[in-house]
Amino acid sequence: MIKLYVNESLGFTERSIDEFTEVPKDRVVWLDVENPTEEEIKWLSSTIGFQMPPREVFGDIEISSKYREEGESIYMSLSFVVQQKDDIKVEPVLFFIKGRYIATLRYRDIPTLLIFLGRAQSQRLFFQFAESVFAEIVKIEVDRIGDRLEILGRRIRNLRKEILQEQSQEVVKDISYYDELNITLRESINEKLRVLSHFVKSPRVNAQTKRDIKTAIDDLSTLLDYTGFYMHKIDSIQNTLLGLISVKQNEAVKVFTVLATVFLPATLIASIYGMNFKHMPELEWRYGYPYALGLMVLVTVALLLWTKKKGWL
Amino acid sequence: MIKLYVNESLGFTERSIDEFTEVPKDRVVWLDVENPTEEEIKWLSSTIGFQMPPREVFGDIEISSKYREEGESIYMSLSFVVQQKDDIKVEPVLFFIKGRYIATLRYRDIPTLLIFLGRAQSQRLFFQFAESVFAEIVKIEVDRIGDRLEILGRRIRNLRKEILQEQSQEVVKDISYYDELNITLRESINEKLRVLSHFVKSPRVNAQTKRDIKTAIDDLSTLLDYTGFYMHKIDSIQNTLLGLISVKQNEAVKVFTVLATVFLPATLIASIYGMNFKHMPELEWRYGYPYALGLMVLVTVALLLWTKKKGWL
Amino acid sequence: MIKLYVNESLGFTERSIDEFTEVPKDRVVWLDVENPTEEEIKWLSSTIGFQMPPREVFGDIEISSKYREEGESIYMSLSFVVQQKDDIKVEPVLFFIKGRYIATLRYRDIPTLLIFLGRAQSQRLFFQFAESVFAEIVKIEVDRIGDRLEILGRRIRNLRKEILQEQSQEVVKDISYYDELNITLRESINEKLRVLSHFVKSPRVNAQTKRDIKTAIDDLSTLLDYTGFYMHKIDSIQNTLLGLISVKQNEAVKVFTVLATVFLPATLIASIYGMNFKHMPELEWRYGYPYALGLMVLVTVALLLWTKKKGWL
Amino acid sequence: MIKLYVNESLGFTERSIDEFTEVPKDRVVWLDVENPTEEEIKWLSSTIGFQMPPREVFGDIEISSKYREEGESIYMSLSFVVQQKDDIKVEPVLFFIKGRYIATLRYRDIPTLLIFLGRAQSQRLFFQFAESVFAEIVKIEVDRIGDRLEILGRRIRNLRKEILQEQSQEVVKDISYYDELNITLRESINEKLRVLSHFVKSPRVNAQTKRDIKTAIDDLSTLLDYTGFYMHKIDSIQNTLLGLISVKQNEAVKVFTVLATVFLPATLIASIYGMNFKHMPELEWRYGYPYALGLMVLVTVALLLWTKKKGWL
Amino acid sequence: MIKLYVNESLGFTERSIDEFTEVPKDRVVWLDVENPTEEEIKWLSSTIGFQMPPREVFGDIEISSKYREEGESIYMSLSFVVQQKDDIKVEPVLFFIKGRYIATLRYRDIPTLLIFLGRAQSQRLFFQFAESVFAEIVKIEVDRIGDRLEILGRRIRNLRKEILQEQSQEVVKDISYYDELNITLRESINEKLRVLSHFVKSPRVNAQTKRDIKTAIDDLSTLLDYTGFYMHKIDSIQNTLLGLISVKQNEAVKVFTVLATVFLPATLIASIYGMNFKHMPELEWRYGYPYALGLMVLVTVALLLWTKKKGWL
Ligand SMILES: [Mg+2]
Ligand SMILES: [Mg+2]
Ligand SMILES: [Mg+2]
Ligand SMILES: [Mg+2]
Ligand SMILES: [Mg+2]
Ligand SMILES: [Mg+2]
Ligand SMILES: [Mg+2]
Ligand SMILES: [Mg+2]
Ligand SMILES: [Mg+2]
Ligand SMILES: [Mg+2]
Ligand SMILES: [Mg+2]
Ligand SMILES: [Mg+2]
Ligand SMILES: [Mg+2]
Ligand SMILES: [Mg+2]
Ligand SMILES: [Mg+2]
Ligand SMILES: [Mg+2]
Ligand SMILES: [Mg+2]
Ligand SMILES: [Mg+2]
Ligand SMILES: [Mg+2]
Ligand SMILES: [Mg+2]
Ligand SMILES: [Mg+2]
Ligand SMILES: [Mg+2]
Ligand SMILES: [Mg+2]
Ligand SMILES: [Mg+2]
Ligand SMILES: [Mg+2]
Ligand SMILES: [Mg+2]
Ligand SMILES: [Mg+2]
Ligand SMILES: [Mg+2]
Ligand SMILES: [Mg+2]
Ligand SMILES: [Mg+2]
Ligand SMILES: [Mg+2]
Repeated sequence: MIKLYVNESLGFTERSIDEFTEVPKDRVVWLDVENPTEEEIKWLSSTIGFQMPPREVFGDIEISSKYREEGESIYMSLSFVVQQKDDIKVEPVLFFIKGRYIATLRYRDIPTLLIFLGRAQSQRLFFQFAESVFAEIVKIEVDRIGDRLEILGRRIRNLRKEILQEQSQEVVKDISYYDELNITLRESINEKLRVLSHFVKSPRVNAQTKRDIKTAIDDLSTLLDYTGFYMHKIDSIQNTLLGLISVKQNEAVKVFTVLATVFLPATLIASIYGMNFKHMPELEWRYGYPYALGLMVLVTVALLLWTKKKGWL
Repeated sequence: MIKLYVNESLGFTERSIDEFTEVPKDRVVWLDVENPTEEEIKWLSSTIGFQMPPREVFGDIEISSKYREEGESIYMSLSFVVQQKDDIKVEPVLFFIKGRYIATLRYRDIPTLLIFLGRAQSQRLFFQFAESVFAEIVKIEVDRIGDRLEILGRRIRNLRKEILQEQSQEVVKDISYYDELNITLRESINEKLRVLSHFVKSPRVNAQTKRDIKTAIDDLSTLLDYTGFYMHKIDSIQNTLLGLISVKQNEAVKVFTVLATVFLPATLIASIYGMNFKHMPELEWRYGYPYALGLMVLVTVALLLWTKKKGWL
Repeated sequence: MIKLYVNESLGFTERSIDEFTEVPKDRVVWLDVENPTEEEIKWLSSTIGFQMPPREVFGDIEISSKYREEGESIYMSLSFVVQQKDDIKVEPVLFFIKGRYIATLRYRDIPTLLIFLGRAQSQRLFFQFAESVFAEIVKIEVDRIGDRLEILGRRIRNLRKEILQEQSQEVVKDISYYDELNITLRESINEKLRVLSHFVKSPRVNAQTKRDIKTAIDDLSTLLDYTGFYMHKIDSIQNTLLGLISVKQNEAVKVFTVLATVFLPATLIASIYGMNFKHMPELEWRYGYPYALGLMVLVTVALLLWTKKKGWL
Repeated sequence: MIKLYVNESLGFTERSIDEFTEVPKDRVVWLDVENPTEEEIKWLSSTIGFQMPPREVFGDIEISSKYREEGESIYMSLSFVVQQKDDIKVEPVLFFIKGRYIATLRYRDIPTLLIFLGRAQSQRLFFQFAESVFAEIVKIEVDRIGDRLEILGRRIRNLRKEILQEQSQEVVKDISYYDELNITLRESINEKLRVLSHFVKSPRVNAQTKRDIKTAIDDLSTLLDYTGFYMHKIDSIQNTLLGLISVKQNEAVKVFTVLATVFLPATLIASIYGMNFKHMPELEWRYGYPYALGLMVLVTVALLLWTKKKGWL
Repeated sequence: MIKLYVNESLGFTERSIDEFTEVPKDRVVWLDVENPTEEEIKWLSSTIGFQMPPREVFGDIEISSKYREEGESIYMSLSFVVQQKDDIKVEPVLFFIKGRYIATLRYRDIPTLLIFLGRAQSQRLFFQFAESVFAEIVKIEVDRIGDRLEILGRRIRNLRKEILQEQSQEVVKDISYYDELNITLRESINEKLRVLSHFVKSPRVNAQTKRDIKTAIDDLSTLLDYTGFYMHKIDSIQNTLLGLISVKQNEAVKVFTVLATVFLPATLIASIYGMNFKHMPELEWRYGYPYALGLMVLVTVALLLWTKKKGWL
């Protein structure tokens, strides 16, 4: 599906792609392409010269698959953060910029693009160049990553307080999830820094857009710092939690191992006086029974005291 | 609430904001704004041109939300260290500098601002530029962070001695708290380094203030070094503590597991001679009972000796 | 075995090496050498001036054994990723470039060379310089490493989900294997970065090839980033897994240590009333037996409740 | 206490401070100040223009408290390594350099200053500039730190051998001490690098002293490398030691847990034949007793064999 | 002992030091000094101007003790890798270069020097400058370190496979040894990089030797990379091994703790029916004994099933 947006003084006006040829030549045009058909890809090629890269290149991690200039055109692939129920994922979006055309190609809904469209309408944004549309979209994505990191920062802070109160195995999983989230954001920030540092050097980009992208690069650098801090915090919290759980479990084992051992001498004494030897003088004693019980108490108490003294209980 | 301070040769004189228009044009003016009302924000906008940023930008971690120039004005957001009972927190303060005006906007008490005001009065500080007020405030904050790190350094040093004397689970929590504190200070130092490195490049700032801020940047760099050293120390102390606790607990478990096992053969012998078989020759023996006891002692002692020899006790 | 490929407008044409002298002087010639005999090495030396380095230099890790210029010739040794059943290995390939000749020397099948040959034929690649052949081979290898890292990234992501569901010792081995694979790819990327950064500075290389190799260097740098992210993820997953396995095992030990201890007082009571003393009043009681059973239940329940209250069960 | 040393061709001559005005104007003068009184501080201020910094600045970690230029004067604060029984500590020394005067202010004995004085006398050192005195003192301190690191290196090497022979809890404490010592030296080296890199840029310092200080900076950089290597070694040794202790303790627990369990079936059999049921045919058997003992041996041996086979013993 | 080697077109010719004055002035002369006597040191000083540094400087780690220029002379101290039975050690060698003289001073056999002499003879090396002798020796040492790292790399790779097959405590010690070896090589590489980077800047060194030393520096940089990779691999293998050993030991403890507990209820039942109460109706039952046995089996089986269901066995 291709949506055709023409930028006018009141923001973007959606048009049918059949009206493409009628668009005034001085307007910036945004073609938002989702899950294109073969036919649509051919249409894009013939009208604006967009050459679809082979599908396997789409998820490539090399920079040459993510940033490419060809003649007048710039191709860029950037991964955008997408919330998915509990999970954070990144989803690639392919940008194509040529003259006054900018196309965005993707295979699912990208929140940042929706937000961009909304803002362009409500603030009636006017763009002189197609690159400025790209810069504005990048700015919104950087803001979104920043917000997510701020939330993550608060959660990590709370997590530390939580684990000092109560240690449960479930929290180990939360920590692992935060670590994955943090490093996913770090990867995504790093990718943007690489792509944008190429973009900003291109002679095809105007000066104002370069200034905007440089600001985005500065922002991404500070966000990268934060993911570094969070890596350390998550690491430290995990070590503390596993340490505390281990200490707590071992404590129970220790106490009961000691208690079990403390009962054993008394049981041995009882077993001894349960033997069936013919000649066992104590069995005949008037106070044999209380004597045996006393012996048990004595041995047990002595053992307990020794244990306490050794600091084992 | 807005407080209006006019810098004169005797430090700052507090004035009512109704007298704002009467302030001589050659004086540096400090507007200290806490929890402003809608009306106060409008007043700031109309008198000194301060445009309140949207509330959600206030806690943003991107540098473009923390440092912004607009026309003649500079907007900066810096987080200030605030002691809160046992907890260390950081609280953002928004700075606005334009010509001879400097405004500080915040939502709670900031110790550094109080100290600054006190020092300006007692030392009768005179400021030629509004930026110099900012530089002085930064200098005080850097000193405060330095002092906190010095205290933290001493505590960490003591902590190491402490854990070698006595290992308790409570100390695990102290260590986690110090790690949080250290990394919070590290974040705050890093933020200041980023903001000030932009500030120092601005053509809107005079040469003397630039020199002062460069000194602050040098200081923050040394403080950053220290947080690095402390990260390592805290890590190492935590590993040592958890190692020692684990060794100690396991030792108790080992000793009692061995002891419990050592009693079992004697108990088995006693149980054997407690069986009710008709034909058990030992039961008839004259010295059956002492023989059984002797057997128990023998087996137990043999087991203990073997254990000792193996290095398990 | 030496295969002789002559580059023509339809890709490479394989020729017998006996026809070597008949090859037109304006064609790029690729000599693909596998497991050469003494004789073949002499032939290479006399025809294109290739001097076989001593065998022990072949696996050397120093850069001077991997990149060498001699007169008009460039010698390069690069390790290529080779899948071997479950295992990933790297295998060195020696490149020799001189004028319009490029030779590749190796001791086993190298998938990248096969892919290169296939692509040259199907896309009918024409090369003006021998270096361009090298650049194309490097490009294919970089793509292959990138693909492997993408697969590894997905597997690591799945691994995290897996270990949060079920913890088994087998996964510890998978993690160790992924760590080895990741660091092997990292070594191989690093080696290529070193060799190519020398190659790109050589005056013997034409400008277009330099641009291609610079793109490969950019790509390798992004791939290096990813191995860094994966190192951290693997580390974190291993810590989480070992932590969870340990917590689970300790839990079983704790529960059963507690249970075993809880049975012991009842056993002691039974042993006591199994003693054979003449004078044991309880034995004569009408309800001695139920009283003893009741005592056992009471003590056991009390112990269980205390344990629960302490949070040990 | 102030000691006045005048540099002459035969080293330093100690003079009473009352003779201060009589010192020839072409001599370098060293004022060594320990625990100064109020009066002495005033004397220093009036004669050589030394302004005592406030006491709280003395232990400050910011570079601006450690290096300051004022008019013709340079103030520097450097921490010197001081052996204290078993403990290594650092102690700040304040340097003041102005024209031909150098003052050192401190609150306890500093070995490096004593060594410097001794060497100046024995080698009859002649100094043309006051800065050269500072450079010579720094050189001695750098040598001392180097020597300490060499000793630490040897001890760490021995420690590794030691822990592979015998694992004791005491060594955990040694390791923690070495870690503290190493990081303390690292902090101290880092501080010197920061201060000296400012000093070397000062226009107040002559060329020869700059060359000497650059050599000291080179040396400190190599020493910093070593503290890095030692950090890694200490870390690795601690992990190995804790691992080995844990393995050893767990081994004992495992062996005895297995042994204890192996005894239990025999005990159960004995308890069964100790039951008092009227109708227990085995009790009447002629060979009931040997049969029971045989059963016990059989079960125990079977359990032991199974355990061995499973690799648990 | 001093050996005098004169470089001629056929390699080095050994001469008696008495013939020193007769050596033609256009020949490079190598003086190889081992364990020199007082007299020999004086001879070196008077003939070639070599000033013996004080013994304590010999093992110094500061760069100023390792690289020094004095007048026309260069003094360098480099540590050379020496195999010693199972152990890898480094041994310092002092180089002195002045005009056409090069001296090497050492206190034990250095394999690299022997290899150098052998190669000079067999390849009939001719040296135009004394520095070229040094460059050739360095090249051989760098090759040797490279070879050792290649062997270490293969061993580490095998180690990983080994620990996944079988986990033993002995391997913990092997790993610790490899870590020591790797970091020792890393220290030695780092030292050479520092010394050579000074050497290469010296105006006393000719251009060809500088090019040779720059190649050595490139090689050492790649070797440094490898020690970094190995550090990570060793770390990861150690964590995996300790994790696997711990899991295996805990598994045995868990299984037997569970088994032991599973026996206890049956033992309790047997003890109960071994009590001597007058009134115990079950004891009189016709099928009391089988009922008791059945009860034991029932309880034990129930417990085992519950354990299985909980996943503890
Ligand atoms: Mg971290
Ligand atoms: Mg960490
Ligand atoms: Mg970190
Ligand atoms: Mg981390
Ligand atoms: Mg940490
Ligand atoms: Mg850890
Ligand atoms: Mg750390
Ligand atoms: Mg650190
Ligand atoms: Mg650290
Ligand atoms: Mg650490
Ligand atoms: Mg550490
Ligand atoms: Mg650790
Ligand atoms: Mg890592
Ligand atoms: Mg990691
Ligand atoms: Mg990592
Ligand atoms: Mg680790
Ligand atoms: Mg981690
Ligand atoms: Mg970790
Ligand atoms: Mg760890
Ligand atoms: Mg380390
Ligand atoms: Mg290290
Ligand atoms: Mg370390
Ligand atoms: Mg560590
Ligand atoms: Mg570690
Ligand atoms: Mg390590
Ligand atoms: Mg570790
Ligand atoms: Mg390591
Ligand atoms: Mg490592
Ligand atoms: Mg590692
Ligand atoms: Mg590493
Ligand atoms: Mg690792």
